[in-house]
Amino acid sequence: MQVLLLYLGGPSKVSCVRTYRESRLSQNVQLRLFDILGQDGLIVEPDRLLVYESDALTYIRGNPLGVALPATSDQLAATVRFLHDEGIPFVPRGAATGLSSGAVARDAMLISTVRLNRLIQINPEEAFAIVEPGVIIAEINAAAAPFGLRYLPDPASAAACTIGGNVAENSGGPHCLLHGVTTQHVLQLDVLLPDGTPATLNRGQDGGLDMAGLFIGSEGTLGLATRIKVRLVPLAQAERTALAQFDRLEDAAWAVSAILASGITPVALELIDRETIRMVEDSVFATGMPTDLGAALIVEVEGFPAEVDADIVRVDRVAREAGARDVQVASDAAARLRLWHARKKAFGALGRKAPEVLIQDAVVPRTALAATLDKLREIAARYDLDLVNYFHAGDGNLHPHLLFDHRDQDQVARVEQAGKEMMQVCVEAEGTITGEHGVGLDKKETMRLIFNEIELDALRSVKRVFDPSELCNADKVLPNVVNAE
Amino acid sequence: MQVLLLYLGGPSKVSCVRTYRESRLSQNVQLRLFDILGQDGLIVEPDRLLVYESDALTYIRGNPLGVALPATSDQLAATVRFLHDEGIPFVPRGAATGLSSGAVARDAMLISTVRLNRLIQINPEEAFAIVEPGVIIAEINAAAAPFGLRYLPDPASAAACTIGGNVAENSGGPHCLLHGVTTQHVLQLDVLLPDGTPATLNRGQDGGLDMAGLFIGSEGTLGLATRIKVRLVPLAQAERTALAQFDRLEDAAWAVSAILASGITPVALELIDRETIRMVEDSVFATGMPTDLGAALIVEVEGFPAEVDADIVRVDRVAREAGARDVQVASDAAARLRLWHARKKAFGALGRKAPEVLIQDAVVPRTALAATLDKLREIAARYDLDLVNYFHAGDGNLHPHLLFDHRDQDQVARVEQAGKEMMQVCVEAEGTITGEHGVGLDKKETMRLIFNEIELDALRSVKRVFDPSELCNADKVLPNVVNAE
Repeated sequence: MQVLLLYLGGPSKVSCVRTYRESRLSQNVQLRLFDILGQDGLIVEPDRLLVYESDALTYIRGNPLGVALPATSDQLAATVRFLHDEGIPFVPRGAATGLSSGAVARDAMLISTVRLNRLIQINPEEAFAIVEPGVIIAEINAAAAPFGLRYLPDPASAAACTIGGNVAENSGGPHCLLHGVTTQHVLQLDVLLPDGTPATLNRGQDGGLDMAGLFIGSEGTLGLATRIKVRLVPLAQAERTALAQFDRLEDAAWAVSAILASGITPVALELIDRETIRMVEDSVFATGMPTDLGAALIVEVEGFPAEVDADIVRVDRVAREAGARDVQVASDAAARLRLWHARKKAFGALGRKAPEVLIQDAVVPRTALAATLDKLREIAARYDLDLVNYFHAGDGNLHPHLLFDHRDQDQVARVEQAGKEMMQVCVEAEGTITGEHGVGLDKKETMRLIFNEIELDALRSVKRVFDPSELCNADKVLPNVVNAE
Repeated sequence: MQVLLLYLGGPSKVSCVRTYRESRLSQNVQLRLFDILGQDGLIVEPDRLLVYESDALTYIRGNPLGVALPATSDQLAATVRFLHDEGIPFVPRGAATGLSSGAVARDAMLISTVRLNRLIQINPEEAFAIVEPGVIIAEINAAAAPFGLRYLPDPASAAACTIGGNVAENSGGPHCLLHGVTTQHVLQLDVLLPDGTPATLNRGQDGGLDMAGLFIGSEGTLGLATRIKVRLVPLAQAERTALAQFDRLEDAAWAVSAILASGITPVALELIDRETIRMVEDSVFATGMPTDLGAALIVEVEGFPAEVDADIVRVDRVAREAGARDVQVASDAAARLRLWHARKKAFGALGRKAPEVLIQDAVVPRTALAATLDKLREIAARYDLDLVNYFHAGDGNLHPHLLFDHRDQDQVARVEQAGKEMMQVCVEAEGTITGEHGVGLDKKETMRLIFNEIELDALRSVKRVFDPSELCNADKVLPNVVNAE
């Protein structure tokens, strides 16, 4: 790699900056960005950019022009303004745990928020926290816990993912069945519009349109959140977990509806299919669950101790009435964790089966779960693909996992085609294409399954209000306009 | 009144239509609207329009050109298309229980949704209802109750107000402290855009931007909802209510924070001030509450029976620690209603004091309640106005009631000025101008207290995406652009 050393005299400082010939950014742009971000705030070397090519949906890769890593709000604002004024497209990026390629940059700069990680305020009296976008979800919870408080949405990646990314994707998680997803827990946003203008976005309740709500889940297409005010709530008084084992998946699916119809709203209601159970039992994570099961259901309830005791008894009874072979119940934390084991270790166990996985995110009405899973299995069999399913059954959020190896181009093509057919099946069952992973690049063409051109145009028009220059994550979410000629 | 009888030959029908010379609508427009809406679907007679001049904020009055009362979705769509194509401004109107003049038409047509009142579907398996906009909130609950289900938001006007109006205003209510307001309970919207184009708006979670969330709370400025899909939840298992009596309002306000800090989230946490207690006790609604009280607090909890029993014991203890003179607790419905009496009858009792009332809707952080109420009282005293306060203390939603007589022009001017100062005080305490009543005409200039011009322009731009012709409730919510010249 050829390195050029330059000395720049600024109005009040002297910077020592290396620029890179191999970079697709001009030397001038590199210098300006180094000047804004400092020596350690910009990555332009092609080899260092490799790890920034994808998010957790690893087989869709981009080619970022560079990565800006602002350490302060001022640096962030200056970076956005500069890129906007230069007409350079950019893509916001949190911890890149996303599963729809929302943080993939194609001929665009990445703006990483990971260094903007200050917990600005925990206010126990009013039960809120104000944080910077790069703060990790688990850190908010760690900071709130001493006050008996917590932040509710719990994406599986809570130990790694950032609140900024959660705002962009409107993230959910296993415990969002009762508690709701990110948008239900954000009180206010300070953002940078795509031209670098700062604005405070309120919830509609505070007057005007719900601009914060519009921004949440916009997948980084409307700007970057710089300060996020989230609601905190009291820690659960007590929790109980049940693991119900079923011979037949349709019985487990039926139990999901029966439990909810009984008047209990569990915090989590997770279904694990036969293939998942076998895969985990076949791995180092084996828990001794019978491998001839058709499915297992994890049910977690929280609340007042006497209430959760009564609830879990009712869950036990309803599950057995629905055909459960066995129901195990746990109340202390260690025992509860053991029951969660098969669900939590499933992703790890996948690694033994294939190097990569496409996690679909489609949603169906929960009464359609069993019939839809049959259809998904038929599709996977037709394309000769391994399919495992473990998912948020309570809100009908299927997560069919299609295993593959990206080096097998034919298999990749079959995975993509099967994934599309699966979304089609879910939409036909009056469901939708995504529950919590977002649209990103991965599902943007599939948006046509759920929106007509009038509705897509309305979405495009709102996007243009925020980003008339079409620079901010502009190739995501919305399918390209098809010109009928 | 002069009446003109006309016979019109249409392609497939003969209409007998009377048009009115006194109407500001041309004869041709009247005939076209009668043709769309039928004889009983259009009001243009000036005397019949009188009752349509205001909503429940009676002192702000408009002058509607006429009232369209479509009985079917097709009639509604044809009406909107026609008005749009003719360039005639229009204002959607539900039951007109609103308190911010959102349904007031100034030189515009009113489109009333009250005849669009079909309960299209109650789905107990998936726990949702699909209804037309004119369905009354209490009717949704009556239809859901046989299935053990309910619709949660409970505006005080639930027996009269429509779901369409609730969507427009993002309505709350005393029980929304725990359960959240309208936007947390709407799953999908079918709407007519202001040019009459139908569109289905999804929640962002289902893919794309949260267009349904943007529409909810837009106060009828983005179009009309034609079909509303709402979440239903199980009926409460048990409810307990406590009425805590305090010598000093600041102790009651402190108890609000202390109860929430104790880990209990009541469904309702309502504060009634000294003036309200005296007014009710001085009326036919008297309940025998001591008139020397400084304030009373109504606390309602719901959940598992043993839980609510424990919760209400804790509420009792916390309230007494905060200085309560007495705490009464009720579990059965009749006794609970008695405790709610002073709160629920306060509005009725107002009538003895003055013919009209301005109900402010400002919000402050709940730790600022007592200090803010002191300031509101100082303002009322300075303007020589009667002020009573009973409000949703749990979410800091103050409802200062300023009593007046609209025939006293000087008093009206003082009420308006005092109301503005009160909002200013709340904004300075890091609150906002509205909690649940909306901005409408009443508070649109006050939007400048909470939004800067950049933020207001963003709101205006989003409005233009939906309503480029600026015909749909276009004089509401957003303050006029001030040209610096």
